Amino acid sequence: MAVTPIAFPDPPLLNSAGVHEPWALRAIVEIRCGDGLTGVGETYGDAPHLALLAAAARSLTGLDVFDLAGLRSRVAAAIGTVDTPDRHGLTGGSSAAKTLARVVSPFEVALLDLQGKAIGRPVHALLGGKVRDTVPFSAYLFYKWAGHPGAEPDEYGEALDPAGIVAQARKLVDRYGFRSIKLKGGVFPPDEEIAAIRALRAEFPGLPLRLDPNCAWTVGTSVKVAEETAGLLEYLEDPTGGLAGMAEVAALAPMPLATNMCVVQFADLPESVARGSVGIVLADHHYWGGLSASARLATICDTWGLGLSMHSNSHLGISLAAMTHLAAATPNLTYAVDTHLPWQLGVDVVDSPLTFVDGDVVVPDAPGLGVAVDPDALARLHENYVACGITERDDTAYRRRFEPGYEKLRPRW
Amino acid sequence: MAVTPIAFPDPPLLNSAGVHEPWALRAIVEIRCGDGLTGVGETYGDAPHLALLAAAARSLTGLDVFDLAGLRSRVAAAIGTVDTPDRHGLTGGSSAAKTLARVVSPFEVALLDLQGKAIGRPVHALLGGKVRDTVPFSAYLFYKWAGHPGAEPDEYGEALDPAGIVAQARKLVDRYGFRSIKLKGGVFPPDEEIAAIRALRAEFPGLPLRLDPNCAWTVGTSVKVAEETAGLLEYLEDPTGGLAGMAEVAALAPMPLATNMCVVQFADLPESVARGSVGIVLADHHYWGGLSASARLATICDTWGLGLSMHSNSHLGISLAAMTHLAAATPNLTYAVDTHLPWQLGVDVVDSPLTFVDGDVVVPDAPGLGVAVDPDALARLHENYVACGITERDDTAYRRRFEPGYEKLRPRW
Repeated sequence: MAVTPIAFPDPPLLNSAGVHEPWALRAIVEIRCGDGLTGVGETYGDAPHLALLAAAARSLTGLDVFDLAGLRSRVAAAIGTVDTPDRHGLTGGSSAAKTLARVVSPFEVALLDLQGKAIGRPVHALLGGKVRDTVPFSAYLFYKWAGHPGAEPDEYGEALDPAGIVAQARKLVDRYGFRSIKLKGGVFPPDEEIAAIRALRAEFPGLPLRLDPNCAWTVGTSVKVAEETAGLLEYLEDPTGGLAGMAEVAALAPMPLATNMCVVQFADLPESVARGSVGIVLADHHYWGGLSASARLATICDTWGLGLSMHSNSHLGISLAAMTHLAAATPNLTYAVDTHLPWQLGVDVVDSPLTFVDGDVVVPDAPGLGVAVDPDALARLHENYVACGITERDDTAYRRRFEPGYEKLRPRW
Repeated sequence: MAVTPIAFPDPPLLNSAGVHEPWALRAIVEIRCGDGLTGVGETYGDAPHLALLAAAARSLTGLDVFDLAGLRSRVAAAIGTVDTPDRHGLTGGSSAAKTLARVVSPFEVALLDLQGKAIGRPVHALLGGKVRDTVPFSAYLFYKWAGHPGAEPDEYGEALDPAGIVAQARKLVDRYGFRSIKLKGGVFPPDEEIAAIRALRAEFPGLPLRLDPNCAWTVGTSVKVAEETAGLLEYLEDPTGGLAGMAEVAALAPMPLATNMCVVQFADLPESVARGSVGIVLADHHYWGGLSASARLATICDTWGLGLSMHSNSHLGISLAAMTHLAAATPNLTYAVDTHLPWQLGVDVVDSPLTFVDGDVVVPDAPGLGVAVDPDALARLHENYVACGITERDDTAYRRRFEPGYEKLRPRW
């Protein structure tokens, strides 16, 4: 059982909490079995999470790879009742249940990888079975600086206005073939972001568009933006915070609202359904407790007529494979999936990453996840982690280094 | 692939639709693989269902045993959009989706049995993992005639009043160790059934009691019975019909309402939750689409704070094993499970049936379901089917043979 923290270069992507630091952190879980098989999982790399992963890993020796109930009970016993919030709340509120789900997740993925390898079946076969051969992903646009301060501009360059956003979208669409587009908003005053959406609509008349300001807006601002973008957005994501505020917006917005911030654990669903807070849940197996728990979330969405897609943080190829298997086994995946992967500019921890063709990933049918860790890459990325000095993501503090008065405000407008 | 209809002796058990005929019908599904492994499932044996099972079976040749999505899509294509209602509505309303779920179920169980055998793991490991080593079942009391008209009394004899019901409960509890008791009601005027509940409470002061009149009552009667049995029942099951009526009763009843009649498919859940129609869902993998679908139902119940247990029709040892594996892997199984099995008086289609010890079944850890069909027993039970002349259950017509004016009425009181 190995848990290896890694770091990889990340561009200065802007969001409602600040700006991405030069290094993004992840942790790679590897479970090696007596019979020589290895299973892998990928998760967050922040220090408080790493401590819990280590405690969890120590508790799992001897566990049968098919015993997912044993996984959950051992991890729960190992970490106790503890709550490690996402510092920026970019994945919503936290709780002990959500913390447990976050810690279980990479081990569950690794066990499913092992199960698949042991029985010669892909992971999607363990999640209910494949219902599609390709999984559509979405271009994920960010306002960004040209490069990190003091460094050369990266290959995508600056995007701080509608023209910059359109240019970025053109590059991503041309390179990867994405057939839907999401803009990370909450960075500039809403009118500027609406202008960017209008510019995208003009440039890509056929592609569905989404806007995600990460709760940067009041209810009133959210309703106003929703009205002004009527007919332009397939959904508006987390315009404002909380199930009550989202419900107020949802009642007036002409498009459905999506979330990865106000419905982030099973316990959030009853109130969300009762209030009508959201029309679409953006699942994320990294904090919903793994792939099998996310598959059960999908059944809930199907039952209540909620749309379903997936949220993404900065990630590498193990997470991409895991997301692809889950999506492949999810009949009611109603929207293209988010991914940050293009922003990692080809750096990966797996030796033959899945790739985007016409915006889709072809579902792997090899046993397990269908990707393998490259030991040299893992070692290099771990060296990055040791050298970079970052142990906990802090987009706000990093931005404040260059804009001393900067504060994270939700709502800001 | 073999689908074998069988019949086994059934006592004259009374319910709100009539009385059980001398033979109960089931169908046994056997899937034999090229490598010599066999998987088994058990389901209803009524003629319209048998025709759909046959069509489904023909469509499955060559299916990978791990491809449950392929199972669902092939069966859906094979049977088309068809609706075969439960004649008496004892399992609630019907729909094309529910019919598909009923047909998929025995094949899904047989494939899970095969998967488990192929990988050397029990079925509960394929459903999320074992969270308990024993599964509690409930004594299932019925008003009954001494024997079928013209035949000798059976070993349980007549139960048509509180004393008869108490004597029957005593036999079942002494033989099997059950630690909770359910009375099938809806047979006599409510006051008589309340008297039976009071008699049971006096005789078994420590055992939880349940009453299930199968929608024989109006809303008004249901509320009155609920008030009069306050403090006596752990739950009241399906007192009246429909989600609206159940919600009216639930709002006034001092105990939770359970159902296997108004929430019988995923599509029923949103309205039930919104109305507060029921507090407990009695799952039944035979019509919820199999064990994996039922496991997802369990997650829904857990998420919305609904209690969960299981419904039973007349069944044999394959269904008992399937129910036991599902219960073993269900963290939120909040009540002891129903079973008709004692009424089959030892007749079974498996060679070493699971048994009740102190009311519990010990969860099998052998590969697959942990039970095997006895070919001689299957042949004998199939001969019964051919000889008995019954091709579709009709409790109402059978009772009318002896009481010409008898009618199924819901509500009756």
